[in-house]
Amino acid sequence: MVIGVVVGSVVASQKTATMDGLPLRIVRRITPEGTLTDAYMVAVDALGAADGEYVLAASGSTARQTALTDTKPVDTIIMAIVDTWQINGKTIYEKAAPETSHQ
Amino acid sequence: MVIGVVVGSVVASQKTATMDGLPLRIVRRITPEGTLTDAYMVAVDALGAADGEYVLAASGSTARQTALTDTKPVDTIIMAIVDTWQINGKTIYEKAAPETSHQ
Amino acid sequence: MVIGVVVGSVVASQKTATMDGLPLRIVRRITPEGTLTDAYMVAVDALGAADGEYVLAASGSTARQTALTDTKPVDTIIMAIVDTWQINGKTIYEKAAPETSHQ
Amino acid sequence: MVIGVVVGSVVASQKTATMDGLPLRIVRRITPEGTLTDAYMVAVDALGAADGEYVLAASGSTARQTALTDTKPVDTIIMAIVDTWQINGKTIYEKAAPETSHQ
Amino acid sequence: MVIGVVVGSVVASQKTATMDGLPLRIVRRITPEGTLTDAYMVAVDALGAADGEYVLAASGSTARQTALTDTKPVDTIIMAIVDTWQINGKTIYEKAAPETSHQ
Repeated sequence: MVIGVVVGSVVASQKTATMDGLPLRIVRRITPEGTLTDAYMVAVDALGAADGEYVLAASGSTARQTALTDTKPVDTIIMAIVDTWQINGKTIYEKAAPETSHQ
Repeated sequence: MVIGVVVGSVVASQKTATMDGLPLRIVRRITPEGTLTDAYMVAVDALGAADGEYVLAASGSTARQTALTDTKPVDTIIMAIVDTWQINGKTIYEKAAPETSHQ
Repeated sequence: MVIGVVVGSVVASQKTATMDGLPLRIVRRITPEGTLTDAYMVAVDALGAADGEYVLAASGSTARQTALTDTKPVDTIIMAIVDTWQINGKTIYEKAAPETSHQ
Repeated sequence: MVIGVVVGSVVASQKTATMDGLPLRIVRRITPEGTLTDAYMVAVDALGAADGEYVLAASGSTARQTALTDTKPVDTIIMAIVDTWQINGKTIYEKAAPETSHQ
Repeated sequence: MVIGVVVGSVVASQKTATMDGLPLRIVRRITPEGTLTDAYMVAVDALGAADGEYVLAASGSTARQTALTDTKPVDTIIMAIVDTWQINGKTIYEKAAPETSHQ
């Protein structure tokens, strides 16, 4: 898997029938140090990731190992939304806690 | 998947028997910003994409996950024609609406 | 798939038993403009391509989707011999017609 | 497979259900000479490798060929912890023997 | 497949159980002209190749298409030892004949 950040979305009305309803997100790879790279992929989003969220993307036949994508022509999938990662014991990224709702 | 633009076609009369009748298109990858790159692939077109159309291409065993390509020696498929995509909330590409026919 | 030109052959007498009799060709990738690149692959030839012929090569599990290669340790196959291809409506390559035999 | 060194971990609470409990490690590829490269991958760890350990990682559908990862959306796995490797008869790396415990 | 030269070995005592007894070799890719490149892979050796021998390596799910590797977490295999190859009709490499034993 690779770490990436969700930067956008693709809309395609003409597609193979089995692709109907699958959200297509544009993911840019980042380095483990958190630097944005030029590599990107279009992935089916199994989790409802928002723009700017850090995710793990899996490729190849692996992308079909979910109920959502089984037997569909999908070669990349977002299968995790990253909370945090660390390199050499140092936290590189930590997802901001959702704000407490006041009610 | 990757975003690409259809730039041409390949004709091959000598091919493995199961390939008969599958349209072969040349697709150039583009960056999410819409810049043409040097990377290209030859893909079976499941949708009848025209020259100049932006498409999504899937690779590997994934390319065989359609009725058209099942069990055939195909490793890349056009499985969507792109209407529009956006990066960071900005529309990068929007397919021109087909002209109204005057009759 | 990628477009390549057949430039040579490999002979290997010691190989896994199921590889017996499969012709192994060296294929160099070319750009859609017809320029030779440094990328090459060794492919099983399902079609009897001659040196100098332009071919399509498919990779991965796809290379096993023929009667010749089914269940064999083959990851690249020549599955088409190219007659012609065009980019932006311009013919880049056209296979020479076989000469008429005089008899 | 490739040789890499375990440099960190990823935590993801939102993931496809089947991923629960699979440890996710960040692995940097190294050259056979032992030099760290910029290439990295996020792998499921089937063996409990520690930070700094040298491992072999396998990719693609291969990553699902263990009881731990079977049918899960995993495309990279740590399937061996390296004790030693040699190039041209010269030992490049040898894992330090665990210290004898004094009791 | 790619042509490579066997340059070394990896020893790993901690590995997924099904990997027991599979020899792990380090293979460096070479160009069709016979030049050593920086690309390398760790492959299961199905044939008992010696250091310095030229081999063909296959990758991906293909690496599991032998009795030795079936259902094991192996993504690269040495499936042929090269005797000779030629480019444009010129022999680039020819394996030395084994010396006649004097008895």
